[in-house]
Amino acid sequence: MLLDASASGVFPIAPTPFHPDGRLDEASIDRLIDGYLKAGSSGVTVLGIMGEAPKLEPEESIAVATRFIRGFGKLPVIVGISAPGFAAMRSLARTVMAKGAAGVMIAPVPSLRTDDQIIGYYHQAIEAIGDDIPFVIQDYPLTLSVQMTPKVIRQIVSDLRSCVMLKHEDWPGLEKISTLRAFQAEGSLRPISILTGNGGLFLDFEMERGADGAMTGYAFPDMLFELVKLHRAGQRDQAHDLFDAHLPLLRYEQQQGIGLAVRKYVMMKRGFIASDAQRKPGPVLSAKASAEVDYLLSRLASSGRSFL
Amino acid sequence: MLLDASASGVFPIAPTPFHPDGRLDEASIDRLIDGYLKAGSSGVTVLGIMGEAPKLEPEESIAVATRFIRGFGKLPVIVGISAPGFAAMRSLARTVMAKGAAGVMIAPVPSLRTDDQIIGYYHQAIEAIGDDIPFVIQDYPLTLSVQMTPKVIRQIVSDLRSCVMLKHEDWPGLEKISTLRAFQAEGSLRPISILTGNGGLFLDFEMERGADGAMTGYAFPDMLFELVKLHRAGQRDQAHDLFDAHLPLLRYEQQQGIGLAVRKYVMMKRGFIASDAQRKPGPVLSAKASAEVDYLLSRLASSGRSFL
Amino acid sequence: MLLDASASGVFPIAPTPFHPDGRLDEASIDRLIDGYLKAGSSGVTVLGIMGEAPKLEPEESIAVATRFIRGFGKLPVIVGISAPGFAAMRSLARTVMAKGAAGVMIAPVPSLRTDDQIIGYYHQAIEAIGDDIPFVIQDYPLTLSVQMTPKVIRQIVSDLRSCVMLKHEDWPGLEKISTLRAFQAEGSLRPISILTGNGGLFLDFEMERGADGAMTGYAFPDMLFELVKLHRAGQRDQAHDLFDAHLPLLRYEQQQGIGLAVRKYVMMKRGFIASDAQRKPGPVLSAKASAEVDYLLSRLASSGRSFL
Amino acid sequence: MLLDASASGVFPIAPTPFHPDGRLDEASIDRLIDGYLKAGSSGVTVLGIMGEAPKLEPEESIAVATRFIRGFGKLPVIVGISAPGFAAMRSLARTVMAKGAAGVMIAPVPSLRTDDQIIGYYHQAIEAIGDDIPFVIQDYPLTLSVQMTPKVIRQIVSDLRSCVMLKHEDWPGLEKISTLRAFQAEGSLRPISILTGNGGLFLDFEMERGADGAMTGYAFPDMLFELVKLHRAGQRDQAHDLFDAHLPLLRYEQQQGIGLAVRKYVMMKRGFIASDAQRKPGPVLSAKASAEVDYLLSRLASSGRSFL
Repeated sequence: MLLDASASGVFPIAPTPFHPDGRLDEASIDRLIDGYLKAGSSGVTVLGIMGEAPKLEPEESIAVATRFIRGFGKLPVIVGISAPGFAAMRSLARTVMAKGAAGVMIAPVPSLRTDDQIIGYYHQAIEAIGDDIPFVIQDYPLTLSVQMTPKVIRQIVSDLRSCVMLKHEDWPGLEKISTLRAFQAEGSLRPISILTGNGGLFLDFEMERGADGAMTGYAFPDMLFELVKLHRAGQRDQAHDLFDAHLPLLRYEQQQGIGLAVRKYVMMKRGFIASDAQRKPGPVLSAKASAEVDYLLSRLASSGRSFL
Repeated sequence: MLLDASASGVFPIAPTPFHPDGRLDEASIDRLIDGYLKAGSSGVTVLGIMGEAPKLEPEESIAVATRFIRGFGKLPVIVGISAPGFAAMRSLARTVMAKGAAGVMIAPVPSLRTDDQIIGYYHQAIEAIGDDIPFVIQDYPLTLSVQMTPKVIRQIVSDLRSCVMLKHEDWPGLEKISTLRAFQAEGSLRPISILTGNGGLFLDFEMERGADGAMTGYAFPDMLFELVKLHRAGQRDQAHDLFDAHLPLLRYEQQQGIGLAVRKYVMMKRGFIASDAQRKPGPVLSAKASAEVDYLLSRLASSGRSFL
Repeated sequence: MLLDASASGVFPIAPTPFHPDGRLDEASIDRLIDGYLKAGSSGVTVLGIMGEAPKLEPEESIAVATRFIRGFGKLPVIVGISAPGFAAMRSLARTVMAKGAAGVMIAPVPSLRTDDQIIGYYHQAIEAIGDDIPFVIQDYPLTLSVQMTPKVIRQIVSDLRSCVMLKHEDWPGLEKISTLRAFQAEGSLRPISILTGNGGLFLDFEMERGADGAMTGYAFPDMLFELVKLHRAGQRDQAHDLFDAHLPLLRYEQQQGIGLAVRKYVMMKRGFIASDAQRKPGPVLSAKASAEVDYLLSRLASSGRSFL
Repeated sequence: MLLDASASGVFPIAPTPFHPDGRLDEASIDRLIDGYLKAGSSGVTVLGIMGEAPKLEPEESIAVATRFIRGFGKLPVIVGISAPGFAAMRSLARTVMAKGAAGVMIAPVPSLRTDDQIIGYYHQAIEAIGDDIPFVIQDYPLTLSVQMTPKVIRQIVSDLRSCVMLKHEDWPGLEKISTLRAFQAEGSLRPISILTGNGGLFLDFEMERGADGAMTGYAFPDMLFELVKLHRAGQRDQAHDLFDAHLPLLRYEQQQGIGLAVRKYVMMKRGFIASDAQRKPGPVLSAKASAEVDYLLSRLASSGRSFL
């Protein structure tokens, strides 16, 4: 049941549902799981940046991860364990793996700069959590301000056998996928799974460049699934037609700082969760913004591609 | 002929055309001017970040600005004068104003952090160039890493009478436009022109929030012009239909680092410039990337909204 | 027993002692407490940046804080609670206050930029932990990359009644102390305690500018205590003579990244702790570096000002 | 007369003297040259960060460099040519070399992050200025936020034959000198000159680690010269005695932002320049700060080590 390099398809980044008063909304976790499974997800990632992980008490984090693990059954659940210290990272990793997680995701700490610092950090993290836990590199320079070259990623994969996946979230990043796949083709990089993030903003071309699927939280995971399927079937134009119909909303959701508010609002309207509340502190959508989202949803509905 | 707070419409951010060997391509400047005028531009901005300004010798900068000023005739030309030192800034500002520029644009230096530092910087810049030159604040945190709140912008506008325009390029930024227009409505901010950047990625809603137009370099300025016109005519759905048809390409062009390469490539294909060469150092589009742009252009052509 | 704005003197920033195999060394905590008390400390700060707090499990953090609280008896213990999320911050704050801590110290998260963001962050933190816990603002731009102007600090102090102290660690920072004390003199800022950090590198003049004492981890807290005493007695030259004798070592200790290794090494040699081990990951002093520290210690001993 | 890898001794970083009204003070340049030569300098570096280079008009920069070149006669003058664009860099480099400069110094632009980006930047810079001009790498992460590992420096030196010197200004940086000298010893790095900066704050140990001398602007270049001489003569204790006597002032001068104001003030008092004016914008020493510097100077005078 452990994650391996053959993983593909759609792994939504799950938000953590809260009641308006800030309590965990466990019933909505179950609805969310149900929605993700119906949408064709191959797995799920919890406690990521979009999962409001730093706002959870340690026991809440474990409760959330455990509920997703139980709900996803045989499908893999990846748990974000990024933390400023390795003690917390190890503790969470060992606990969730014991509960049945398939692997963990590790983002670099924002202060890392040189190639050696980044590589050294992953060595230390794996020394801390143990090399028996499959892990995902999160490469997200826009938010984390850490820049990993393809060569750095190759070095980490080569040094650390438990690395099985790259969450690719560089921007721009199309050439990075091509370079990594060329490394594989020439034999200098063993095969790894590449799932892409950035809200899906370039998923149309990322699949064509060699990605194995998407790991992102766009409020229409069914679209992501359908896009991957059309791509695999070689139906390029149809894949782009679908993507383009969603792009106005997808672009709106992909705004730093308020993206999660938009995403939870849409998921609430779609019935995936009961409330769009974020635990404090978190931004609130203005009336103008939610009206804009409503307008985009109505246009999407008119296009006949909204899955509602 | 000086820029004032009533400016509106489309002010393209002009690239600087080069021959493949790196020389300035002056004939292409003339074609570009022609293209911009036919596309309905209200003015133009030259020597901005996308104009490869730091790669120009001082005399080349003046030559480029002068050619645009002559070509645009009575329409306003704004010249980017951002520089690490005030001496270079003053010198360029005084020179281009004497040549007939309508105003200048000033970005903050990336090291500024506190509100007082940012406000102080604009005071010093205006003391250097003189308070008789209309100027534009460039608010572009994604690239410049300087974050200006609406209150900071209001303070600059209030302190410095020669400030007439905001180039709004925050991301996300819709609420910022609404806040600034609310300041105006309540009388705490005198009217200024707000033109928006970010490649146009949110222009559809920016107009609805109160922007006066676009100041950005998207390779289809005709689309920007048409969008502004539809918005003014109250044709909301039609404006969004047009915008959405362009969004896949517009999004592709809006990639940090390679955006200018995409833009010049499209402008070359449209006949606005003879070559897509950037002066070194500059990224080159990969074969895969140019094929992707070609594909997006063909889809745009099929939509009947490509103005070709 | 709660911390208030009258706090003064020396509050060492305590390192966390470990055995060479990485286990907490509780006996050394007791020796350290003994050493600090003999050195004339007025209180102590634990779980700060130099306390390797992110490497501790939550229960270890509480154990460390509790041991210091017990050992310091009626003297105040300040606990660093900075964390990426407010849940962890609140949980640690409430727990250590229940154990007898005198107050908590809060550093801003590194992503904060604008004045409003910084002020807002402290509002949210206090909303999370409760306004009944005295707190210290940690102003440390060199490491945290957050720049607080004196006006921002004044606003936080004015808005939040539970703010009683500033850990001043700006660099350069002498004018900041003067500005804050001038705010107090003119009545626009209520009195707060100002203790200074930065390893003590400017403590000689910081006292003269109006600081109430030192909150830093220099391996000779006895020197810090004596310096404060000489200053209060008006013995300026003698204070500087003492300071200058320590400056070569103090400067050596004040190196980003390896400073804690130097500090623990000296404290081990002085008998304050049994081992200079840092929990992994942590830098190790090279043979050349420890020989350099030995040389500086021998010179300090020759000066007759080493307190050994 | 070109700079080569055998350069050693003291190369002061020269400030640019101005009249109180902001005009260049050419007579003070001549006094400064005289002072530097009497202090035993082996060369000089002009138009660096501390030379207020961005505040100079292009023709002023050339005038300043030319005056130093003439004044230093056969001794080497290094000219800082760091600029946001390669066009300005090339133009200044070619001009000053034609006037008789011995080499140029190049700092990386602050946006560089990965090892490959840094190495690539130096390749592009040398392609721009030509590989016939000896150049100095400026490694100053505290101000430039670019972190170069010893391996990156080795790669640049290995790739680019015109690289002859490192201005070492990392902090902390003692191990970096040892690592680079170990590279040389093992034959993986050809010999280069290493001169150290950071105001001289670690010069005592930097010489012992293998530096060839100092390139920094401390207002007592005579002390730097004497220190290097004592080190070469194997008089370790005497070198440290001298250094320690200056450390209180040297530390005071080494404050980000106001360091140049302190330095110019001391140089004015020493008669090296007529006025401590900085061209605007620049900080002004407060009355308290200049009194503190006066006090440090009086203590230095009492020590008998002030060279006055």
